[in-house]
Amino acid sequence: MVVDTLTRTLAALSDPTRRAILAQLKNGPATVNDLVQPFSVSQQAISKHLGYLAKAKLIRKTKEGRQSICELNPLPLRELEGWVMEYREFWEGAINRLDEFLKENKEVRNNGRSK
Amino acid sequence: MVVDTLTRTLAALSDPTRRAILAQLKNGPATVNDLVQPFSVSQQAISKHLGYLAKAKLIRKTKEGRQSICELNPLPLRELEGWVMEYREFWEGAINRLDEFLKENKEVRNNGRSK
Repeated sequence: MVVDTLTRTLAALSDPTRRAILAQLKNGPATVNDLVQPFSVSQQAISKHLGYLAKAKLIRKTKEGRQSICELNPLPLRELEGWVMEYREFWEGAINRLDEFLKENKEVRNNGRSK
Repeated sequence: MVVDTLTRTLAALSDPTRRAILAQLKNGPATVNDLVQPFSVSQQAISKHLGYLAKAKLIRKTKEGRQSICELNPLPLRELEGWVMEYREFWEGAINRLDEFLKENKEVRNNGRSK
């Protein structure tokens, strides 16, 4: 089955440890060891997560001597931003309606009090 | 296991049919039947996808007589936008570097030609 890139990006991101690894890589490239330390999971588990992120092209792995260096590749996130922004008008609308409702409700309560 | 809301949102979105259902609901609320028609999958499969989306609070389901009406709830997507925007500077940086590289490359080629 061919999986489209957006589906692959979303599936890779749907894990808090993988998102935490990406957040860590915002500070710059890191070795696998650097990435294992902050998490209370085994090196094997981290390697599996890194493999997943690399397959989704969210990170790039290179070899430097014996060490594997991981680097953030933010480009797939641009497609995700494009997708999510198509819903912006809808959540802004929902928030505005909620604000209106709360405002009206407050007015009704205040009017009740002043009587 | 408690799953955080962002993980739940991302997992629900990591399926092209579920994203297509959300896109359909941008046009307004729809019955389950309305939502089955455009897709070449069974009503059972669509119902399963709708259950997934409802659990992730990306849709709201209400009963109108015998019919189930589904409505888009865009609010969880706002959290996703907040998350993805933290990476904007990184993809903008990557695109700028790519542009620079292509520009330099073009100049090198043009200089080569004019000799």
